[in-house]
Amino acid sequence: MKKELSTEPYKGTRDFYPEDMAIERYIFDTWAKTAESFGYERYDASILEPSELYKSKGAENEELVNEQTYTFIDRGDREVTLRPEMTPTVARMIAHKRRELSFPVRWYSIPNLFRYERPQRGRLREHWQLNCDMFGIDAIAADVEMIALAYNVLTSFGATPDDFVIKINHRRLRSDWLEDQYGITDESVIAQISRILDKKNKVIEAEIKGLLEPIVQENYEKFRKELDLDVNSFVQLLNSERQHSSIIKIVKSLNELGISNIVFDASLSRGFDYYTGTIFEIFDISCENNRSLLGGGRYDNLTELFGDEPISGVGFGMGDVTMRDFLETHGLLEGKVASTAAVLSIIPMEESLNIEAQKIAQIFRSSNIKTSVDISDKKIGKKIAQASEAGLQYILVVGGDEITSQKFTVKKLSDGSEQTGGINELVKFLINEIRSI
Amino acid sequence: MKKELSTEPYKGTRDFYPEDMAIERYIFDTWAKTAESFGYERYDASILEPSELYKSKGAENEELVNEQTYTFIDRGDREVTLRPEMTPTVARMIAHKRRELSFPVRWYSIPNLFRYERPQRGRLREHWQLNCDMFGIDAIAADVEMIALAYNVLTSFGATPDDFVIKINHRRLRSDWLEDQYGITDESVIAQISRILDKKNKVIEAEIKGLLEPIVQENYEKFRKELDLDVNSFVQLLNSERQHSSIIKIVKSLNELGISNIVFDASLSRGFDYYTGTIFEIFDISCENNRSLLGGGRYDNLTELFGDEPISGVGFGMGDVTMRDFLETHGLLEGKVASTAAVLSIIPMEESLNIEAQKIAQIFRSSNIKTSVDISDKKIGKKIAQASEAGLQYILVVGGDEITSQKFTVKKLSDGSEQTGGINELVKFLINEIRSI
Repeated sequence: MKKELSTEPYKGTRDFYPEDMAIERYIFDTWAKTAESFGYERYDASILEPSELYKSKGAENEELVNEQTYTFIDRGDREVTLRPEMTPTVARMIAHKRRELSFPVRWYSIPNLFRYERPQRGRLREHWQLNCDMFGIDAIAADVEMIALAYNVLTSFGATPDDFVIKINHRRLRSDWLEDQYGITDESVIAQISRILDKKNKVIEAEIKGLLEPIVQENYEKFRKELDLDVNSFVQLLNSERQHSSIIKIVKSLNELGISNIVFDASLSRGFDYYTGTIFEIFDISCENNRSLLGGGRYDNLTELFGDEPISGVGFGMGDVTMRDFLETHGLLEGKVASTAAVLSIIPMEESLNIEAQKIAQIFRSSNIKTSVDISDKKIGKKIAQASEAGLQYILVVGGDEITSQKFTVKKLSDGSEQTGGINELVKFLINEIRSI
Repeated sequence: MKKELSTEPYKGTRDFYPEDMAIERYIFDTWAKTAESFGYERYDASILEPSELYKSKGAENEELVNEQTYTFIDRGDREVTLRPEMTPTVARMIAHKRRELSFPVRWYSIPNLFRYERPQRGRLREHWQLNCDMFGIDAIAADVEMIALAYNVLTSFGATPDDFVIKINHRRLRSDWLEDQYGITDESVIAQISRILDKKNKVIEAEIKGLLEPIVQENYEKFRKELDLDVNSFVQLLNSERQHSSIIKIVKSLNELGISNIVFDASLSRGFDYYTGTIFEIFDISCENNRSLLGGGRYDNLTELFGDEPISGVGFGMGDVTMRDFLETHGLLEGKVASTAAVLSIIPMEESLNIEAQKIAQIFRSSNIKTSVDISDKKIGKKIAQASEAGLQYILVVGGDEITSQKFTVKKLSDGSEQTGGINELVKFLINEIRSI
């Protein structure tokens, strides 16, 4: 006997039935609209990339590619990877056309990304991500714009500054501080400390202490206190010639733009392997969903891999799963996602009227009214009940009398109210009805 | 020395720079709008599926999966495939929720699909495809609606019935004809003949003859003539009890709906391994792009694989590459794809005014005017020239005087005309300008 196939999607991926797809599209459309309002243009590429694109940063990267991505050999003996992030792709595309592009380039994309990991809340094997990047501007005005865009992405869904906090840090502040206060200059030790600090909000204090004490030893208490300093005090810890003020200026500029839910956090470590300047991360501050929503920063060397002069960039990414969790936690999806069902069902009284019904439907469709025809062999009462169940708002029953008189009746299912007239009148009537919803 | 990375995309895939992405989005948006106007709801799923989903139809299918798809083993020892088509996925999803869904189900999707083949014009390794399906209606009214939807997909881009032809056939007409006229009943021989006929329009007549003569032998001339018969004459070739008239009815119904560019073609063979009833295919009839644009048909056994009773379905698929070729061939893209650049560039006179410029930009953005701020360190003349090059339509220069007086000037780059006023006046001005374009 033949084994029956499973109807489940592949582990760690999702099926999007129309009701989920509608939420997904609402999120993507709002992302797109916000990015475009800032003058960002959309790009995309294939999910399949040559694996070397991810391996080129050295042995550690190679391990990451081998262990945490979907990588395989194609029939032409090329090693290919399902992209785990979009930045290498966008760097490749920028490098490819750098002589034709007019900088600064402001681009966004909404790619799906694959990571090989154990599925858990907010972390699936496949997710979609809004990626916004600006290339070609070194000045902190670009960092400011990018953080303002990230802030606007959240507020465009109706979130308020009380719902989230923006944390900011700078990669060089970390290394300068470790050198000036603790004499630590070894890059691998700095990276190790950053990875430990990255866990700070996810595990208990004692665990962080247990991990850091072997490194900073008797200085742990001092080290731990300094992590909680505000930006002005923290900068004072550095040798005077290294006390750069970019973070202070960025925060001040954002305050001037009306964005005040931004704080310096010396322990913020997201993407330290990756970013070369400012880093920022947005956290949900609700108790139920106290998580990272979005991360970004400045990178100044992405296009070097392609044998070209570096182009500076600043950008961020935010995932669809965390976005949806955030919107649900804060009740921001309610009333926002329209029904995906047709608006009007044309119901022929008998099968022989199916084509007449389709003709009428075509008139409504050409006026942008979503119209389906009930071509099932159900009884008329059943058809009406089903239209209602399926979320349709109006019905129009077509019988022989209606065809003869060319007078039809549109019925609103929610209150039973009716409107009778010729087709063109009814088209106008429905256009007005839909507009007023 | 480190080898430099290539900036090319993976073979057979495409990078979508903003200008290409805009065309792609125009195509997807038009597809979506047309499908939704018929009451079809959008769904999606992951591009990764368990390979068994494609292999289950028997050994021949297994060969196809192994040779023509991207299939690999994941780290959990599961065999996975990058979907080569959407139908098995939608069948899986329908089977998974069949008890909750209200039939008929009308669904559409715009997935990307992968096939391992040699890239050639119109055939890449990755392409996107509009898939429309209706499940749960046996009656030919569903076939009629599906073909009407396919027709509307093309006309919604501005195509006219003179640009394309719809060809229609029925799987059972083929097998009944071969049995009644030639005594051929072996399914594998019927499949072989169908594969040969599928090449009919792609190769010279002599090649078809060479392939068919060994099968039908001395009957070849008769066989060849019968292929060119119209539907009424062709049906007469069958034993009287098998002369079903569904094709005749479908064509007649479509004619009543005003669709007259539809013809019966006894040699049409697309998807004969797959469909169980009506099949149809749309061809571009221009000489430069004489190709298949869209194919579909009825299948009545898709969900059987999942151990459930069969649900009948009818659907079609059409690719983005062939769609774009068709639109370009017929000049149907001209003037249809909007610039993706921002509409307005706010240009600060000096760096210290960047934040003031961003503040002003926020006011325009909140009225849905795409606004970028020129935060580069270029000279003012250079900034204006660049805005023009990048396709922006309006500029607003911010200097100290403007900040003091709160009077600003918007300049239209195409004709140099100017409008001066407070920010709110200028927002209203631009909203009207954009609306009138």
